[in-house]
Amino acid sequence: MTSSSGDHRRRVEPIFIIFLCLCAVSSGVDSAVHHLKWEIKYEYRSPDCFQKLAVTVNGDNPGPTITATQGDTLVIEVTNGLHSENTAIHWHGIRQRGTPWSDGTEGVTQCPILPGETFTYRFVVDQAGTYIYHAHYGMQRTAGLYGLIRVLVRNGTIEPFSYDKERSLILNDWWHKSTMEQATGLSSLKFGWVGEPQSLLINGRGRYNCSLAGGTDVCNATNPGCSPFVLTMVPGNTYRLRIASVASLSALNLEIEGHNMTIVEADGHYTQPIVVKNLNIYSGETYSVIVKANQDPSRNYWVRLNVVSRKPGTPTGVAILNYYPNHPKKSPPTIPPTGPLWNDTVYRFNQSKLIKSHPNYTEAPPRTSDRVILLLNTQNKVNGFVRWSINNASFVPPTTPYLIAIKENLRNVFDQNPAPGTYGYQNYDIYSVPQNSNGTLSNSIYRLEFNSTVDVILQNANTMNVNNSETHPWHLHGHDFWVLGFGLGKFDPDVDPKSYNLIDPILKNTVAVHPYGWTALRFRADNPGLWAFHCHVEAHFFIGMGAVFEVGADRINKLPSYILGCGESRRLIKT
Amino acid sequence: MTSSSGDHRRRVEPIFIIFLCLCAVSSGVDSAVHHLKWEIKYEYRSPDCFQKLAVTVNGDNPGPTITATQGDTLVIEVTNGLHSENTAIHWHGIRQRGTPWSDGTEGVTQCPILPGETFTYRFVVDQAGTYIYHAHYGMQRTAGLYGLIRVLVRNGTIEPFSYDKERSLILNDWWHKSTMEQATGLSSLKFGWVGEPQSLLINGRGRYNCSLAGGTDVCNATNPGCSPFVLTMVPGNTYRLRIASVASLSALNLEIEGHNMTIVEADGHYTQPIVVKNLNIYSGETYSVIVKANQDPSRNYWVRLNVVSRKPGTPTGVAILNYYPNHPKKSPPTIPPTGPLWNDTVYRFNQSKLIKSHPNYTEAPPRTSDRVILLLNTQNKVNGFVRWSINNASFVPPTTPYLIAIKENLRNVFDQNPAPGTYGYQNYDIYSVPQNSNGTLSNSIYRLEFNSTVDVILQNANTMNVNNSETHPWHLHGHDFWVLGFGLGKFDPDVDPKSYNLIDPILKNTVAVHPYGWTALRFRADNPGLWAFHCHVEAHFFIGMGAVFEVGADRINKLPSYILGCGESRRLIKT
Repeated sequence: MTSSSGDHRRRVEPIFIIFLCLCAVSSGVDSAVHHLKWEIKYEYRSPDCFQKLAVTVNGDNPGPTITATQGDTLVIEVTNGLHSENTAIHWHGIRQRGTPWSDGTEGVTQCPILPGETFTYRFVVDQAGTYIYHAHYGMQRTAGLYGLIRVLVRNGTIEPFSYDKERSLILNDWWHKSTMEQATGLSSLKFGWVGEPQSLLINGRGRYNCSLAGGTDVCNATNPGCSPFVLTMVPGNTYRLRIASVASLSALNLEIEGHNMTIVEADGHYTQPIVVKNLNIYSGETYSVIVKANQDPSRNYWVRLNVVSRKPGTPTGVAILNYYPNHPKKSPPTIPPTGPLWNDTVYRFNQSKLIKSHPNYTEAPPRTSDRVILLLNTQNKVNGFVRWSINNASFVPPTTPYLIAIKENLRNVFDQNPAPGTYGYQNYDIYSVPQNSNGTLSNSIYRLEFNSTVDVILQNANTMNVNNSETHPWHLHGHDFWVLGFGLGKFDPDVDPKSYNLIDPILKNTVAVHPYGWTALRFRADNPGLWAFHCHVEAHFFIGMGAVFEVGADRINKLPSYILGCGESRRLIKT
Repeated sequence: MTSSSGDHRRRVEPIFIIFLCLCAVSSGVDSAVHHLKWEIKYEYRSPDCFQKLAVTVNGDNPGPTITATQGDTLVIEVTNGLHSENTAIHWHGIRQRGTPWSDGTEGVTQCPILPGETFTYRFVVDQAGTYIYHAHYGMQRTAGLYGLIRVLVRNGTIEPFSYDKERSLILNDWWHKSTMEQATGLSSLKFGWVGEPQSLLINGRGRYNCSLAGGTDVCNATNPGCSPFVLTMVPGNTYRLRIASVASLSALNLEIEGHNMTIVEADGHYTQPIVVKNLNIYSGETYSVIVKANQDPSRNYWVRLNVVSRKPGTPTGVAILNYYPNHPKKSPPTIPPTGPLWNDTVYRFNQSKLIKSHPNYTEAPPRTSDRVILLLNTQNKVNGFVRWSINNASFVPPTTPYLIAIKENLRNVFDQNPAPGTYGYQNYDIYSVPQNSNGTLSNSIYRLEFNSTVDVILQNANTMNVNNSETHPWHLHGHDFWVLGFGLGKFDPDVDPKSYNLIDPILKNTVAVHPYGWTALRFRADNPGLWAFHCHVEAHFFIGMGAVFEVGADRINKLPSYILGCGESRRLIKT
């Protein structure tokens, strides 16, 4: 049931059994406690044949897949084996009800985990579905700390689709320069950008053209570690394919040559079944699709992954769909399908709008909201530095996490003024390079009334480059939100809400805001905690594209002392 | 008087003045308080023409030179502007009497400084002389966090040598791979070594052969930042040259073409004046030498820096001694002098033995010691990992600093058994590859009686390679020690102490242990604190070549809370 392996497994099992028994006795529910011990390290890896340092979890990159059943408890002891870097791990999509300090968001919910230290995350996976975990510290996700979480339905529960077997694909983009180089460039007065990723990775495997690298000592195309991932299927069978993207930058489009995909799950919620030829997936999103192995069984097929929304500077990523018993490494006789044009915004926009809640599982949103927050996303210069801003405020988290500052009443940690809830939309031209002469750095937050219903409209606009607007996948911690609507152009508060889908909107935790477009969300602020809400592009959040929501702080239990120790929380140390 | 610059200086001056006044009033002594504000960052630098990330202090690499007068107080607010790495800065050679928590030794005297946080070091420079500062966290010194400290004698104090002007040279070795890559290789089960340094740097400048690098985007020989350092002298004048080595690996030999050097100061203590043609300097050592500009003034001369003790894989480093008013960049008409053979151990051994205390400043050591600690330095494998060990114990610091663990009585932080004080020297063959089947990792320490006199004999031996023994410069924190003697071969406790120099040994804080040799030290454990004692080769200390001395812990004042927050010290947090 757990994904720990080797020595770790042996050490873990007795504890696992003890916890399992206790739970069964105390609650009468058949829920388990999975006790995992993880060591995070840097190791040399060659995921796309090019050797560089990558973060591993117990030696694996990507990290191990966690499998649990709805209602189970995960106890994950993370030991930071990096030499001089801190870490924190976010359990993306897990709502952390009652355990806001286990959300793993450094600067928001915890102090960082220092080298040599062990931090124990403990939380319940209360919702079946497909989730991910990844570093949430600086830009460390880019260094390769990520993996998949599968939360299965309870025994006897019937899902609204059927399949014979299950497979998973976790998608990523990958640079050959270090995370530290990327971060340094982004935060320098002389802005530096590492450029487009060198590779797209499918289950941690890509393929770089080693003739472009300087010698076989750093790039070796014969390294078996960088051969394409093989997805084996038995002809005639039906598969559930769990797909997740942890890409640091790229919006992705995935296609399985000759096979349609039927989308059935998005971010842990069942969707109306939708048949697509290819799937647009944005960083932080997860899907389940149904694929039938119903094509010519005498050959293999390409799994094709492309960058979309940005002008591609990264080669197509591939895996092999292997029809058993063909040789798993036998190249398909075709070239990989081309897929949609990278700049076909309307195509992606339309697919976003297709994703709706499954009729048998629809939880309709409240008809009205208590509060509307309108957030303009712009690229600005602040004090000479290139930044992303929300309503002209560019987010910089404090060194003392918000959760600690608020619960321990450390008022000088962050600006107590409310973060800006709207912008001058009447006069703002979203198609022009922003003026933004009044952009500022900010660590103020949005305080939401407990149990209130909140609408957030994310408005995209032109970047600092003429005729350019990017795609931003926004991710909310601690809650799922209803996706009420998408638009292209400027959101009009008087008109656009009339087109909201209040019947069967999908619940998600991550959603795309398309170039020059808007996306409208609604959620019930019913989970006490301090919750990050940010663009899931690692570089964008790193230079300001984020916010924090406070929800029902007075209902948060006493903080565990292990999350403290940094910043102003040292004031609480009594020697 | 302070070395901060630009905006920082402007912010600093008012505070400086206030403190200066207070001191003058309260003590009646003319001592100043220097208030510095430092920001530590990664920035792209090309010290040897090859561009890579380097740690800067307020934008400078090397960091600014600190100048103060004996008895002054330094208050240095260090803000960690690294993105995900912690830091700590050691003030090497400053004894930190009364301020053991300002020694800057992460894991021993303080918790690390987290990204975004500010840590204030405050201490008195109680002894004139030449010192250095550098990162003391993981292998971060290798990333370029270092600089010089000049502590001047008080006004009116006469030094035992005279000169017209003063110059400084800080020496370093430099790799093109990152510190993280070096650290990962060293700590992997499949041991990896980055190889010899690409360059030697003099005042942060070296010169790599860019034709060996992959393109002018990473290596540009026309970059003015990597032209040789120019040491300008006026013909006929006499110079005090302060020389310090912060090399991560290399033992160095420095020569000024055509000019003798007279050694007059070593590690802050006046020496018998010794004339040398070239100077062996080991990492962590500082010297002052007197150089007279008494040669043909119509030309310039080479300053030549070579690796010794290791088979050179690093080109000679050079600076230009410029005789004013010749053009400072005019190449000398000669080739740089060759210097001694890299493997001439006897040459270096003999120069070490020449360094003695100046007769007018000799403080004779106690005739006898209260305790003798005999430390065998060996390279071992422990649990399959390549390690350095002391008496078969390979040092691994705990995540809770010793100073905190001891003062706050956190007994489970480290092994309370005493560290091993001797080894089976009767039967040990220092010329053979060590067997060391019983090597262990250890965090136990040496507890020294307050005010006792302690002898430490460091015994060098064969590494894991046949016919190989290396040079190890050992550095003691918190104290200077008398250098009682050096030997080649195995130290015999019954015979060798009879040859100790008890008349005029030099006091130092760093001293070399030569290949297959021994070095005997004596010090009075009179400075309450927890003090690291370790090989100053960054890679050696990183994989175990170190120890910690506890001195008079009951005399240490209440700890400032800002040094806490990590590891077990979180138990002291009261929410």
